[in-house]
Amino acid sequence: MEFSALLTSAGINIAFCALFLSLYSILRKQPHNYSVYFGRRLAEEKFRQQVDYFSFERLLPTAGWIVKAYWCTEEEIRRVAGLDSVVFLRLFIFSIRIFSITCLVCLFGVLPVNYHGQEMNHTYIPEESLNVFTIANMKEGSAMLWVHCVALYVITISACVLLFHEYKYIARKRLAHVTGSPPNPGHFSVLVRSIPKSGNELLDDTIRNFFVNYHGSSYLSHQMIYRKGNLQQFVDNAERAYRKFVRVKLSVFDQNVRSNLNRCGLCGVRASSFQLYRNKFVDAKKSDLSDPEVVEAQKDCPGAIVFFKTRYAAIVASQVLQSSNPMLWVTNLAPEPRDVYWSNLWVPYRQIWLRKIATLAASVAFMFVFIVPVAFVQSMMQLDQLKEMFPNLKGALKMSFCVRVVTGYLPSVVLLLSLYTVPPLMMRFSSFEGSISRSGRKTSACTKILFFNIWNVFFVNVLSGSVLNQLNVLTRPKDMPSMLAELVPKQATFFITYVLTSGWASLCSEILQVYNLVYNFFRKCVFCHQDNPEYAYSFPYQTEVPKVLLFNLLGFAFAIMAPLILPFLLVYFCLGYLVYRNQILNVYYPKYEMGGKLWPVMHNTIVFSLVLMQVIALGVFTIKKSPVATGFTILLLIGTILYSEYCRQRFSRIFHSYSAQDLIELDRDDEQSGRMQDIHQHLLDAYCQTPPGTGGGDNGQVPIEMIMEDPAQEVSDSSQELCDTVQEVSDSIQEHIDDK
Amino acid sequence: MEFSALLTSAGINIAFCALFLSLYSILRKQPHNYSVYFGRRLAEEKFRQQVDYFSFERLLPTAGWIVKAYWCTEEEIRRVAGLDSVVFLRLFIFSIRIFSITCLVCLFGVLPVNYHGQEMNHTYIPEESLNVFTIANMKEGSAMLWVHCVALYVITISACVLLFHEYKYIARKRLAHVTGSPPNPGHFSVLVRSIPKSGNELLDDTIRNFFVNYHGSSYLSHQMIYRKGNLQQFVDNAERAYRKFVRVKLSVFDQNVRSNLNRCGLCGVRASSFQLYRNKFVDAKKSDLSDPEVVEAQKDCPGAIVFFKTRYAAIVASQVLQSSNPMLWVTNLAPEPRDVYWSNLWVPYRQIWLRKIATLAASVAFMFVFIVPVAFVQSMMQLDQLKEMFPNLKGALKMSFCVRVVTGYLPSVVLLLSLYTVPPLMMRFSSFEGSISRSGRKTSACTKILFFNIWNVFFVNVLSGSVLNQLNVLTRPKDMPSMLAELVPKQATFFITYVLTSGWASLCSEILQVYNLVYNFFRKCVFCHQDNPEYAYSFPYQTEVPKVLLFNLLGFAFAIMAPLILPFLLVYFCLGYLVYRNQILNVYYPKYEMGGKLWPVMHNTIVFSLVLMQVIALGVFTIKKSPVATGFTILLLIGTILYSEYCRQRFSRIFHSYSAQDLIELDRDDEQSGRMQDIHQHLLDAYCQTPPGTGGGDNGQVPIEMIMEDPAQEVSDSSQELCDTVQEVSDSIQEHIDDK
Repeated sequence: MEFSALLTSAGINIAFCALFLSLYSILRKQPHNYSVYFGRRLAEEKFRQQVDYFSFERLLPTAGWIVKAYWCTEEEIRRVAGLDSVVFLRLFIFSIRIFSITCLVCLFGVLPVNYHGQEMNHTYIPEESLNVFTIANMKEGSAMLWVHCVALYVITISACVLLFHEYKYIARKRLAHVTGSPPNPGHFSVLVRSIPKSGNELLDDTIRNFFVNYHGSSYLSHQMIYRKGNLQQFVDNAERAYRKFVRVKLSVFDQNVRSNLNRCGLCGVRASSFQLYRNKFVDAKKSDLSDPEVVEAQKDCPGAIVFFKTRYAAIVASQVLQSSNPMLWVTNLAPEPRDVYWSNLWVPYRQIWLRKIATLAASVAFMFVFIVPVAFVQSMMQLDQLKEMFPNLKGALKMSFCVRVVTGYLPSVVLLLSLYTVPPLMMRFSSFEGSISRSGRKTSACTKILFFNIWNVFFVNVLSGSVLNQLNVLTRPKDMPSMLAELVPKQATFFITYVLTSGWASLCSEILQVYNLVYNFFRKCVFCHQDNPEYAYSFPYQTEVPKVLLFNLLGFAFAIMAPLILPFLLVYFCLGYLVYRNQILNVYYPKYEMGGKLWPVMHNTIVFSLVLMQVIALGVFTIKKSPVATGFTILLLIGTILYSEYCRQRFSRIFHSYSAQDLIELDRDDEQSGRMQDIHQHLLDAYCQTPPGTGGGDNGQVPIEMIMEDPAQEVSDSSQELCDTVQEVSDSIQEHIDDK
Repeated sequence: MEFSALLTSAGINIAFCALFLSLYSILRKQPHNYSVYFGRRLAEEKFRQQVDYFSFERLLPTAGWIVKAYWCTEEEIRRVAGLDSVVFLRLFIFSIRIFSITCLVCLFGVLPVNYHGQEMNHTYIPEESLNVFTIANMKEGSAMLWVHCVALYVITISACVLLFHEYKYIARKRLAHVTGSPPNPGHFSVLVRSIPKSGNELLDDTIRNFFVNYHGSSYLSHQMIYRKGNLQQFVDNAERAYRKFVRVKLSVFDQNVRSNLNRCGLCGVRASSFQLYRNKFVDAKKSDLSDPEVVEAQKDCPGAIVFFKTRYAAIVASQVLQSSNPMLWVTNLAPEPRDVYWSNLWVPYRQIWLRKIATLAASVAFMFVFIVPVAFVQSMMQLDQLKEMFPNLKGALKMSFCVRVVTGYLPSVVLLLSLYTVPPLMMRFSSFEGSISRSGRKTSACTKILFFNIWNVFFVNVLSGSVLNQLNVLTRPKDMPSMLAELVPKQATFFITYVLTSGWASLCSEILQVYNLVYNFFRKCVFCHQDNPEYAYSFPYQTEVPKVLLFNLLGFAFAIMAPLILPFLLVYFCLGYLVYRNQILNVYYPKYEMGGKLWPVMHNTIVFSLVLMQVIALGVFTIKKSPVATGFTILLLIGTILYSEYCRQRFSRIFHSYSAQDLIELDRDDEQSGRMQDIHQHLLDAYCQTPPGTGGGDNGQVPIEMIMEDPAQEVSDSSQELCDTVQEVSDSIQEHIDDK
């Protein structure tokens, strides 16, 4: 490929991008597309008021959305879209920063050295082959390789400094998020699984006795998880209804007293009276349990959610080994209510380890099986092989148009289509794995897709050759550096076009929301539906994070080898930053919070990319016979690994646990301000179990927020709640009767 | 090597063993050897009463010790030598059981099949080459390979069943040990490291404030760890003296009251009055701290031991993340006092991760560097190479005696001598690693030596060839099975003689205690010292466990390949069981308790050996072209890995932590019986810090036991204690004055 061809390709892609972005700026102004482009805002019901008037301005492309997306503060994004979006955008900020530095260093330092590597007469630059810009153009034993080595040092050190800064910043943000957000029921609740069954006691009593016995001072209550049984559902609903009723009554009563007493010391009374009612109810329920159906249902109970009085007590119960048999009384901190993945709670705990191994095996197997479509694509690109495979197609294959379609267009379509099967499959794997929370499932899928992308997009393409060749590489890890060093520069052209087409195009398709747009168009204009469907999806971290990280990896891997890729990447990151900011602000609706848990994944992948860059450089310096540069690179490699280990020591635990200090402070604040009793009451109703059939999907559950309302609001809410509850109970009764 | 040669070699070794054991049975009856052969009993001072009379019987070899060793119950061994010895002996019991089964299966099933593998005329058996007994004698594609496959299944399944049984048994023993042994100060104490320094507060106050603030209900007291400073030592001693004095006073007072009141409810009063005294003292000490030397000493303090009121509180504090910076307020459950490795407590916590990586790198490097002496030994075995290396030795090398010595004897001496450097070096590595307890250091060294043995004795000898060859194997993991399958049967003869010489001989040298015996002889008979020196060493698990595990590995690796090794191994295990039982009962003195923590290491190594056996079998079946057997072996391999993972899930955590249930029950028992106050008092004096210079060695510290004395004993002890304390304090003052 010549330099001019690359420029042409870039020009075409830039034009397309500009076109799509203009199209977006027009389409977003059309009222019938609001549901596509402002899903989040619609979900928050602030956007409906806009009047549907026509103006000529609606047909003009404008850049207003870019300005809005750019000027929005981070705090605002955190408030509307959660910490995870902030973390995702920080990844872009990091990428922009590090690739600006890399661009500077490599375009003005490494590129001229590569270009003048061989003693040759350079022709007019646009007619130059792209190979003269890569490290393949350097002579063996060239003294100028120290430029590459210095560039390597500059890139690695600045990446490490920036990464450390980001890790620290995000860890601080995470802490502020934990301490600053409203009380989260997940912090007070522990999921207990694998409860031992005793013959002469109901499971419900077993759980109560265990926690009253060993965590008596902090145990509040518990809620069983049922696998099946409508009666159970009914009893549960009735209990919830009763509790709500009690609360409403109390809050009405409370309202009156409170206004007189100004909230001093009365909370205690209120809670204990509530407790009184509750205990009565529990007693009433106990006598109910002589029913054989209830006993049957309890036998199938795979676990319970246990509520504690303080956050600290919950985290202690979740981290300390409960029983001397580690397979019994397994405790984990419960996810927040809207994050619970109910259908996995019904999975018996003793299956989990087996499921994890099976999933791991299946993912690895799938990764390698996927080489088959890649090999098929490669064989499609070679016409001769194709003719052999399908002899009766020979006639059609003689036409030049058909040839062009079959060899040029079809392969990438096949590859793209087979790539589209990956995220749903990996999500299914992650569900099967037995993750108890939606966020855990997403994180797990994200890691799997990341591995898959790095292996199947980067390695398989770099090592392109026969399938056997690729497998052989795995069996000879020692030859990896020199093999990569030889093959990576050759594939530079492919990956530059990959960034242009897959990277830039994916951003355009992301902002246009093509699928939803078309669906909406047909729905409204062809089938004439008038209502606005809601497109409030949660952000697809599991597909977007691996994509961005893959581009990071490409950037680092090619930085020294073929610096021409860097400007295109930098444009991708800048554009991506704006596009995703816009999408996060307008389109996606955060259904649950992962608390920035994806950052360690991102950090580790970037460190891996740095190490990969150094390993490739090591191979290059060995091939080019520059022992000094090799030595310095090994030093850098050791330094990078030590740095990564330090970061793990310093930050990793923050993202997996909460510190006693913070939790105790939070508990104290709540106790001193008297909010604790309110929290305890809300806690008991926080976890609403969806029936087995409906809990699987991502969109199955309406988010429940546990926010302390101001007292004036409470009464009207309560009466509304009461109505709902009555409705619920009557529905349940009706259902129960129908079943009988 | 012929079969008869093997029998001759075995006969010679059996004769030697019999000789050494008889010698032992005579030597142990000589009174001047008591200190060598009854170190533990002497240390417990029960053995001194024996009268030194001469009888002719003393010169006759007897088997009484074998009977005594055999009939001793496990419970007795646990009581005198701790749980670790029991676990070590269980390893022998497991080995004897599994290798009895393996012997049966392989000698009567596999061996005849191997022997009749080729269609050939068999000569008289003793003249047969040993090769006809190995799997190398089987034809390609032989149908009789299913015998090997069935044997593989029988061995693996019985090993898994036995292992599971052992794991369960030892886990139960460990729990019984934890709940049954006297209160351990380590269960109440948490080691806190990396305490943040605040400018306007002394470290002592920082610690107190932190724990009073966040663990107020359970915090009892704390003890700083000082790096240097005699004054600090002095202040500490004074505090300890004061505390002991108070206790003596109280216990005298208590004694009087107690006899009247029969121990009812007075403990509370006693403790609070004690607390009163203590607080006064703390106040007094606080004013002392204006001294700049104290401030200086506190600056260097790397941590503190914090005491809690209950075991549960201590484990909670040790497991929950304390601060939002995981590198600050790092908590670990403290080792028991005699197990603390003081000199490592002075290592700043922020160095630990770096030290661990450095140690790992150094150990791996040493493992590979050790190939050099092995290669040197190999080159010594080849005379031609030797002549080239040392041309001026040509004259000497012509004599046949010299040749025999240089090629036959010297190589193994060189290898043995270089192998002797390994355990001390690995112990040094493990000390450098920063382990806070002696037991942790020993466990870590044990793992390192284990890896080293498996690599340098098994792999390097099997893959014997040039150094480069061995390294190449690592870079081609795929070829490993077939390479092993080809090479392992060839090395059968070498390893059979290895079992005979290294295994049996090591047992004889172990029971004779050659080094101590000679030292003792020179000391008493040549230099005429009359006193009995104490040879009360703690059991060298770090060298013995890897040795036994290596023989296990050899047994499994060769079971199918060359079953002739099995009877010799079985003899080794039976003899070893008796010898080590005897040594544990008589010679070694347990200085600290590891609580059976070595079992998971043993279990994992045995599972690894099983997997290795299967991998080698896989290679053999591939070479012998038996696809069905290959398929079944792969199934077995997957099953073994799943089994190992299940064991990890089921048992592993028990060996690293204590369960809340057990600890709370223990706490309750102690509280209800009123012992808790006594425990708290003992706790404050339990950790006696040795000065930096003397704390390093293994023999530096006299074991302190924390046993609840009966009240009558207490008074006399107390007065003795008081005298000691006064002596201590006056010594300290003297030292302090000398320093000034």
